[in-house]
Order: sequence, then C-alpha cells, then structure tokens
Amino acid sequence: MDLKTYLVKKRALIDNALKAYLPEPEGPAAELIRAMNYSLFAGGKRLRPILCMAGAEAVGGDEQLALPVACALELIHTYSLIHDDLPAMDNDDLRRGKSTSHKVFGEAIAILAGDGLLTEAFHLMTRIDLPDKVDSRTLQEVIALIATAAGYQGMVGGQVIDIQTAGTEIEPSLVEFIHTHKTGALIAASVSSGAILGHGSKQQVEAVTSYGNSIGLAFQISDDILDVEGDSNEMGKGVGGDAQKGKNTYPSVHGIEKSKKILREIIEKAVEPLKQFDLRADPLRHIARYIIERKR
Amino acid sequence: MDLKTYLVKKRALIDNALKAYLPEPEGPAAELIRAMNYSLFAGGKRLRPILCMAGAEAVGGDEQLALPVACALELIHTYSLIHDDLPAMDNDDLRRGKSTSHKVFGEAIAILAGDGLLTEAFHLMTRIDLPDKVDSRTLQEVIALIATAAGYQGMVGGQVIDIQTAGTEIEPSLVEFIHTHKTGALIAASVSSGAILGHGSKQQVEAVTSYGNSIGLAFQISDDILDVEGDSNEMGKGVGGDAQKGKNTYPSVHGIEKSKKILREIIEKAVEPLKQFDLRADPLRHIARYIIERKR
Repeated sequence: MDLKTYLVKKRALIDNALKAYLPEPEGPAAELIRAMNYSLFAGGKRLRPILCMAGAEAVGGDEQLALPVACALELIHTYSLIHDDLPAMDNDDLRRGKSTSHKVFGEAIAILAGDGLLTEAFHLMTRIDLPDKVDSRTLQEVIALIATAAGYQGMVGGQVIDIQTAGTEIEPSLVEFIHTHKTGALIAASVSSGAILGHGSKQQVEAVTSYGNSIGLAFQISDDILDVEGDSNEMGKGVGGDAQKGKNTYPSVHGIEKSKKILREIIEKAVEPLKQFDLRADPLRHIARYIIERKR
Repeated sequence: MDLKTYLVKKRALIDNALKAYLPEPEGPAAELIRAMNYSLFAGGKRLRPILCMAGAEAVGGDEQLALPVACALELIHTYSLIHDDLPAMDNDDLRRGKSTSHKVFGEAIAILAGDGLLTEAFHLMTRIDLPDKVDSRTLQEVIALIATAAGYQGMVGGQVIDIQTAGTEIEPSLVEFIHTHKTGALIAASVSSGAILGHGSKQQVEAVTSYGNSIGLAFQISDDILDVEGDSNEMGKGVGGDAQKGKNTYPSVHGIEKSKKILREIIEKAVEPLKQFDLRADPLRHIARYIIERKR
C-alpha cells in the first residue's frame, strides 16, 4: 500500500465529516463556533481519527462505523492544543504556522472554544449513525476508555506534570510518564476505540492497544526530535521551542542520537503484536514507520 | 415534606458519593487532583445532583440509579465555575467565601482542573453501578442530552455571550437567552436526565423538562436579585459584583421589583406541568418555591 495516498484519502474523509458535524457560525454564539472551527481546521494531520479508523479496519471491522468517534478524538486533541497554547500554559503565538486561538479570539473565547470542543466531542460520540450496527454497550465502553485517556489519569494529568517540571531537571522515567500520558494515552485510545467499535476480539483489542501505547510514546519522541532538528517551515512553528521553555524531552535527557535509537526500538516493538493480523493491519504498520520518517 | 431536612440528607448522600468517585491526591498528578477536589468540596449546594435524583423520584424511578450521573452534573457545574472565575473571564478572587482555584493553584492548574473535571464527568456517567437496571441505550441518550446542555448550544454558548455583552446595553430577550443557556440548560438537563434514568414515560420526561427549563431561568434570576440585595456573608462573595462588572442581569434591564414579579410568575409556570404527578414530585415542587425564598 502507498501510505501517502492512504493518508490523503482518509484526511479528506475526516475533514468532510468534521465539516458536516460542526455547525455554521451563526446565532448569538457565532464567535464561539468560529473559534472552534478555526482551530479544528488549522491544518491538523488527523492522526488520531485515522488511527481510530485503521484500528477498526485492522480487526476486520467497518471503519465507517468508527467515524463519529474518530472525529470526536480530533475535537479532544484540538481542545488540548488550544488550552496548551494559552498564556498561562505554554504561551505560544503560533501553531502549524497560524496564530493560536487566543491571539485571534482573545483568551476568554479561546478557553471557551476548548471547553466547547471537549464537550461536543462527547456529544459526537453518542451520534453513532447506525445504531443497529454499533450497540450502546460498546459505545459506553468506548466513551469510558476515551474519557479516562483524556482526563486526569491521562492527557490532562500529563499536561500538569509537563508544565510543573518545565525548567527543572527530572528523571528519564518522569519524561516517559509525561509523554505516555500527555500524548500517548489519547493516541492509544484512538487505536483501541477503533478496534472495539470494529468488534475486535479481546485478544485483538489487546494487541492493538499495545501497538497504540508504543506509537503514542514514539510520536511524542519524534516530535521532540523534530523540535531540535526540524525545518521551521515544515513544522509551522519555531524550532528549538522546547529548549527555550526548559521543557524536558527525550533529546534533553538522553541526547539526540540515543533518542533516535530509542524511537527506532519502540517502533520495532510497536508492530510486533500486529503479527497476528492480516493485510488489513497494513495501515497501522505503515503509520508506525512513518513516525520515524516524518518531517513534521 | 420538610425541604430543609430533605436537602441536608441529599447533600450528604451526594457528598459521600463524590468522595468515593474522586481519587485521593497522590502520584505525579497529585496537585491536579487536589485542585479538582478543592473546588468540588468548596461548599456547593449540590442543586443539580439533587434535581437529577428528584427527577428520577418524580417519575417513580429509583433515585439511587441516577447517582453517578447526578455526581457528574456537579463535576460539570464545578468546572464551569473554575473557568468562569479565571482572570481572562470574570476575574473573581472569591467564590462561596473561599479563594478561587486560580488564586490557590495558579492559572494553569485551574484551567486543567476544570478540564479534568469536565472530562471525568463523562467518565463518571458511564459508571452506572447496576448495568442490569440502567441499559446502555438510556445512558447514551442521557450523555447526549447533558453534553448538548453543557456545550456550545447551552452553557458554554451562554457564557460566551455573557462575557461579550458585559458593559454594553442589551435587549431583555438577550438577557433571557444568556440565562437560559448559561445556567438554565444544565439545570433543565439535570431534571430531565433524572426522569429518563428513572424510566419516565415520554410525557413525564416532557413535563419534567418543562419544569426544568423554568426553574433554570428562575434560579439565575434569583441569583441576580441576591447579587443586588443579598447579605454578602450569606452569599460568600461580594454583593453588587454584577453591576461592577457591567453584567446584564434581570435587575439591570427590568429593575428589581419587576424582576421579582417575573421570578414569581416563572415559578408558578414551573410547577404547572407537575400536576400530573403524585407526592413523589413534592421535592421538585418545594425546590421551585425555595428558589424564591433562598438567601444564597
């Protein structure tokens, strides 16, 4: 398979679905909806929705059934970026080469746009279009999984420690904790929820979850490396931002060469549990390789 | 029935459930959990959880079944207060006589504590302890209802307009829009979700929803009146804060006497649809009266 073509196709599918799910900016709260849409369509790679659909496909399920949940994952990811960029947090003016939400809409609307996206994500998850094909019990399991991954035990918990430890020297194990929580948990939940929605067996879901945990960490390590080595045009933000902010990253605690080695090892480990799957897991396999090679 | 005794009993029940559901502040993200707990146990009246359980009782359902959802509603309410108090929003230092979250924990942790509470609310909703008594389909409906009420079409939408219109003169109809969205939507969803979880008939759920819409608006009007006339010791915050902030309220657009008249009329209208219910709807009836008489 050609991954580039696959990604382009999936992105278009997800972008169309997101456009259909999100409302037009009209009525008294038009500015809020404008802010929600602004960040949602600011050039995201749609990695989490793609992983969700690829997870469903890998276990032989219908990826179309995973679409509302896949889109909900992108809403959660987008809300987290808006809040992370706030002056009280990372204080970033640019994201993917565009002004961040609070620079365009002001801090109050940016906070509320994040809140609105997070809340709408859970609404969207309940909008399974084919209720006869995805039963409510499965959906309940998926909502619990994603809420846990996004909340204090996952993404929000990781973000707290990321912010608290900036500018201080920490153990490599705590950097791993930050990465697996702040970034890894939602990525892992994306693949797992797809496999659950695709009616994968318990063993299949476990295998895919193991894959998800590995690539979630790998993705953040590759982000760390790109922050040091990347082309600022391709990254859409300044390079070296992590060091300026005193962020603890894999390069900062392990050095750049060892970080690359760790990244390669994690990717090897990631695809291992996929051996039991047939060709339908090829997107997952290719995405793992792509994490090593990606330029942004 | 004696409402005071009823409210004390229900508050204790809900406080105990909240304590059991929320984790101890330990592990790397202890400070986040501390901040979540701080605001959650800062003296809230637990109006929304009580309304949820009273909604279940009114339709003849088992209020115990509504407990996780009832607690989730309090988490959503608490998150909204933390974010509303932020410097970028209402910039409040005190809430219920206690320092607000960002004054105690700093802005970053306050934002994340709100995010954590909102996310955990949806996790909690999936934690129905008696899966044989509340089916997943019902739960899916309740999650959709609450997410809609809390999001851009409800609470978050109302908050945006509240902030945008502060200091400007607006039409009475827009003040009503703000109140029904910012406060009313989640209160209405609290009663409705209880009635749905209590397996109320379509007609019963509609009646209770109509009641909820009325008292949601009434509650915010009484809040506006208390902000002008209340005892600052009993309110736990400065009186006259709305006027200082240029907030549009019922007293500011209608005057205080007309606001009280409107409030009484809305309460009359609120209890009207409850005529079809027996004594088990008495808590809902008494809570409506209490909104007129309350001092904080």
